[in-house]
Amino acid sequence: MTGNIFTSLPKKSATEVFDILLQNKNIKIERIVSQGHTSPAEAWYNQEENEWVLVLEGAGTLLFEDGRQVTLEKGDFLHIPAHIKHKVTWTATDRQTIWLAVHYSSQLD
Amino acid sequence: MTGNIFTSLPKKSATEVFDILLQNKNIKIERIVSQGHTSPAEAWYNQEENEWVLVLEGAGTLLFEDGRQVTLEKGDFLHIPAHIKHKVTWTATDRQTIWLAVHYSSQLD
Repeated sequence: MTGNIFTSLPKKSATEVFDILLQNKNIKIERIVSQGHTSPAEAWYNQEENEWVLVLEGAGTLLFEDGRQVTLEKGDFLHIPAHIKHKVTWTATDRQTIWLAVHYSSQLD
Repeated sequence: MTGNIFTSLPKKSATEVFDILLQNKNIKIERIVSQGHTSPAEAWYNQEENEWVLVLEGAGTLLFEDGRQVTLEKGDFLHIPAHIKHKVTWTATDRQTIWLAVHYSSQLD
């Protein structure tokens, strides 16, 4: 339940690394560390839950199914409602990107 | 719904500055900016909701009613269950402390 989000960073990994910082029935807070990773070309995230995402370090680009593309840099946050299809098309390759993601039930809107 | 958590910081203020970044029925995400502010000596926070807090810049000390004292520095996070009484007894005076607080319903545990 307690920790530091900037420590215990993974070494360069073949895949993104997900760490759950808090999980309860209807909320999940996780740290995601990327370095050059992107979503598979054919795959979209289509989540049952709302997501609020904040980039703490690095940078990444999200593509939405409607063609909208958003690059998030350090400090940028964005809300992604449930079932809004999206994927990660770019993350910085020269440094780690640390995302904080808060997933919460769309039953609560 | 979109923004940058490190920009539009308040100038030195007589009180802490709260900005709501996201609010739905059972979740509220806010940025709190402190600089030398503390809770009033006699007052405890006794919240109806659970809170997950992360220090993004600066440092602050929380005191719990059982005497436990925790200083959070950059990157440190902590979960405060609903009705666990606490107060802020110290925040850095030489720089701003930026807290990210996620409040969510204790009905969901």
